[in-house]
Amino acid sequence: VDADDAPSPRRGRPADPNLDDALRAAAHQVLTEYGWRGTTIERIAERAGVARTTVYRRHGSVHGVLLLMMGDLYSTAPVVDTGSLRGDLVMIMRSVARTWRDPAHVDYVCALLAAQRENAELGEAYRAQMKVRREDTTQIVRRAAARGEIRTGLDPGLLLDLLSGVIWQRVLLDGAELGDDFADEVVDAVLIGFATV
Amino acid sequence: VDADDAPSPRRGRPADPNLDDALRAAAHQVLTEYGWRGTTIERIAERAGVARTTVYRRHGSVHGVLLLMMGDLYSTAPVVDTGSLRGDLVMIMRSVARTWRDPAHVDYVCALLAAQRENAELGEAYRAQMKVRREDTTQIVRRAAARGEIRTGLDPGLLLDLLSGVIWQRVLLDGAELGDDFADEVVDAVLIGFATV
Repeated sequence: VDADDAPSPRRGRPADPNLDDALRAAAHQVLTEYGWRGTTIERIAERAGVARTTVYRRHGSVHGVLLLMMGDLYSTAPVVDTGSLRGDLVMIMRSVARTWRDPAHVDYVCALLAAQRENAELGEAYRAQMKVRREDTTQIVRRAAARGEIRTGLDPGLLLDLLSGVIWQRVLLDGAELGDDFADEVVDAVLIGFATV
Repeated sequence: VDADDAPSPRRGRPADPNLDDALRAAAHQVLTEYGWRGTTIERIAERAGVARTTVYRRHGSVHGVLLLMMGDLYSTAPVVDTGSLRGDLVMIMRSVARTWRDPAHVDYVCALLAAQRENAELGEAYRAQMKVRREDTTQIVRRAAARGEIRTGLDPGLLLDLLSGVIWQRVLLDGAELGDDFADEVVDAVLIGFATV
């Protein structure tokens, strides 16, 4: 029996930033080398140079370590206000594309997608972060609407879903690299449909 | 040591459709109950009522079973030719949305995304199927372009990436249900940008 099957991570311990940083770095390495199935508390602890009981006590299970790794993944988005919808969206898409160019990020998100079907807390934490991010980007669309930059009768949520969805399609499915022109090209194509000008 | 760590599935055995159907059904059940981490040859074999050595001999590893489950996932798309770009795209999006409404499909794809980072053969097989599907949908866009239905200077591949990407965004990230109006709404929003009319 593998303690990784523990249903829910426990987060009752006081934070120890140094230890958690070491565990995060170790978990990224193990994930890249062994994939999600091969990412065990044993391997993470060994890589971080700590006892496995230390990891179990702090994070409960390997799903708890995945939650630790999530950190504030999506709360670090820059607040953007260039004065135009196109300018704002291009800046955000460039920032997101940079994140996705890191193979460790792709490894992490692939593991998370499988893990959220195994552990509801992970899925909720991820969606909560995405929701905060989405509120920020929705502000951008609202300001643009107030400036008269958006066609009426279209769903601003759909505009944002199209922009983020195309990244998932290209990176996760096609295994494509997001080139330097990616952000501009996608924003322009979508804005032809959504913008008034 | 878990034989699931075997790097690559072996497919040398002659096909036995009945056994493979039983294994596919068992694997879907195990995946839903235990998630990708908990999906083992042992559990699949037990659920299918066969010896685990039988599964190992036929499919090599649990990644081999995932390859078996892939089957012809994407080769069964209907050939669509309604005479208009909008009509064709709505039909395809409705068909894809139906597939994604099945939670077993979502479980499978989430497992596959994690598993393709562990086993290159799986990722290649998936991308090969997507490529065939993409060639079919590209035909649709080409016919529309020949009818003068598409703006010049826009990338038809991007049109298709936007349409499939939004499904990933909504189902995998938001955990949303794709409603009855989904296909029409998305196709209309994207076509405002891409269509000449």
